[in-house]
Amino acid sequence: MLKSQGYAAQNASSPLAPFSFERREVGAHDVQLDILFCGVCHSDLHMARDEWKGTAFPVVPGHEIVGRVTKVGAHVTKFKVGQTVGVGCMVDSCQTCPSCGEGLEQYCENGFTGTYSAPDKVSGGYTYGGYANNIVVNEKFVLSVSDKLDPAGAAPLLCAGITTWSPLRHWKVGPGHKVGIVGLGGLGHMGVKLAHAMGAHVVLFTTSPDKREDALRLGADEVVVSKDAAQMAAHANSFDFILNTVAAQHNLDAFMVLLKREGTMTLVGLPEHPHPSPSVANFIFKRRHLAGSLIGGIQETQEMLDFCAEHGIHSDIEIIKIQDINQAYERMLKSDVKYRFVIDMASLAA
Amino acid sequence: MLKSQGYAAQNASSPLAPFSFERREVGAHDVQLDILFCGVCHSDLHMARDEWKGTAFPVVPGHEIVGRVTKVGAHVTKFKVGQTVGVGCMVDSCQTCPSCGEGLEQYCENGFTGTYSAPDKVSGGYTYGGYANNIVVNEKFVLSVSDKLDPAGAAPLLCAGITTWSPLRHWKVGPGHKVGIVGLGGLGHMGVKLAHAMGAHVVLFTTSPDKREDALRLGADEVVVSKDAAQMAAHANSFDFILNTVAAQHNLDAFMVLLKREGTMTLVGLPEHPHPSPSVANFIFKRRHLAGSLIGGIQETQEMLDFCAEHGIHSDIEIIKIQDINQAYERMLKSDVKYRFVIDMASLAA
Repeated sequence: MLKSQGYAAQNASSPLAPFSFERREVGAHDVQLDILFCGVCHSDLHMARDEWKGTAFPVVPGHEIVGRVTKVGAHVTKFKVGQTVGVGCMVDSCQTCPSCGEGLEQYCENGFTGTYSAPDKVSGGYTYGGYANNIVVNEKFVLSVSDKLDPAGAAPLLCAGITTWSPLRHWKVGPGHKVGIVGLGGLGHMGVKLAHAMGAHVVLFTTSPDKREDALRLGADEVVVSKDAAQMAAHANSFDFILNTVAAQHNLDAFMVLLKREGTMTLVGLPEHPHPSPSVANFIFKRRHLAGSLIGGIQETQEMLDFCAEHGIHSDIEIIKIQDINQAYERMLKSDVKYRFVIDMASLAA
Repeated sequence: MLKSQGYAAQNASSPLAPFSFERREVGAHDVQLDILFCGVCHSDLHMARDEWKGTAFPVVPGHEIVGRVTKVGAHVTKFKVGQTVGVGCMVDSCQTCPSCGEGLEQYCENGFTGTYSAPDKVSGGYTYGGYANNIVVNEKFVLSVSDKLDPAGAAPLLCAGITTWSPLRHWKVGPGHKVGIVGLGGLGHMGVKLAHAMGAHVVLFTTSPDKREDALRLGADEVVVSKDAAQMAAHANSFDFILNTVAAQHNLDAFMVLLKREGTMTLVGLPEHPHPSPSVANFIFKRRHLAGSLIGGIQETQEMLDFCAEHGIHSDIEIIKIQDINQAYERMLKSDVKYRFVIDMASLAA
């Protein structure tokens, strides 16, 4: 077995603390990497505190992983030792269902294996994530990270990046489109950058007027304070697509009425308490759509990483030491982060 | 002015009763018809009783009209005296907005003119509908009704038919698709017939087990009692498209989970009280869509009528005399109709 060092929560109320564990040795199709950086996703906090129920403890969170390959299995063809690679939210899937066949492993009909706290079909037990010094993953779920990308700023692309990229691509966002991004957090700031780079006219919706300058800097063409009814009304019936990244319970109708005929609003945030029921009239009278989207497939994750390398797109990050992770969680709860914490894994050895 | 005889409600609580009124004389682009049959839509009852608020009284309901042309304006090219024609839910629209330009007058950005109780932009006052002996309509909103169609059975096609046809066509229902129709009323029974004729595998969802035989006769391949959890579970993740015709408040999640990845459920019924808020997880984990659809455009209404003539499709109807309209409303409230009342307008002269 491979010895690993990381940070884990032992139960729903314990802070994250140093934890030693074992991973499987590299198999024929596996890649082993030393983790350089790992982004801190809000899901990590939900899972560490068992807020979605079903967390398997001890849990080593982390699914925005960038590292360097240290070992490859006998049959690995795509990667070699020394290469910079990434691992996102998934480390396995059935590879036989129609969704896997289409490269949409996130919708695997037999359930994909999450990067942490998921039953591990290969080794038994549960998967451990990226708040650790190393990881072993099947090459099918390893991404190539271009040397053009800063490895720390690239880490959040593996979850926040792909979660916004996939719906923007699926709904064919591009030049000539007016696109709304709701919320300027870890996901929203990537949505603004990506939609802008895809050539769309980007409008950022926020409840905080003080995020205006930052949103414009990130690539928004316009910023609308969603609490201001007059500002909202000025955009009625005008959007081709709205990507709603807000997980907190809120009024969907305020955004539905901004869609053009046949426009779509796609939700990527899972609210703890249901949103108020959206008005059926807003669907019927303009043939509008409400939809949802889950992270993204491996192939499209690679396309997103390559696109980001080509366009010089990274997440806006604040680098922290692993020892500061509990404090970072508290700051994340207060939205006191622009826009993603990334753990420098070298701190683990300190 | 043209003298008209019909039935009207004088206020929200009065029954429908004989009413004499005037319509405009045929203009250069108008068609005048003697009404042969008029279908009875649930909207007629809502409007006559002001249940949606804003009804202009006195109201002459009726927007499922089939009649015979008695006069045409000087510039009318599409119709001639003696021809059988139809008029549906709309009698006018701006003709200049993008939606009108695409033949989707039902989404007219300046608001279409409803066949009754709508401000009449041509003559002033309010429009009067089809519970009457005649009507005058701009030729752009008049449909050709084939001699192959029974005029009484064709009348409900002008609302119930097009309201189900438009979404089935827009979401490209056809051979190889598994399509659900929720509810077996005026709209649902047309949805079953049309989806079947389009070549789809049709599953009818009903709360009434006793509708089973009828649904199979109408063209359903399967019937599912939606209150039966086991029957419902057997269809999880299997539908390409679900057309939900139920206006009463109900649990949308029960049907959302039956959609395949990327499947769409389209609502055509406007509930008086909101449906329970649909679960966001059902959208996200299968990239599913919820949408709405409103009647249909004039061009697609003509296509639907021609398709029905070719395939011998009519509404299943019960013909009534205009004198029995109040009683018909009471029976409609008890769903005691298979599946549409149609008024024989010859009864008006009796």
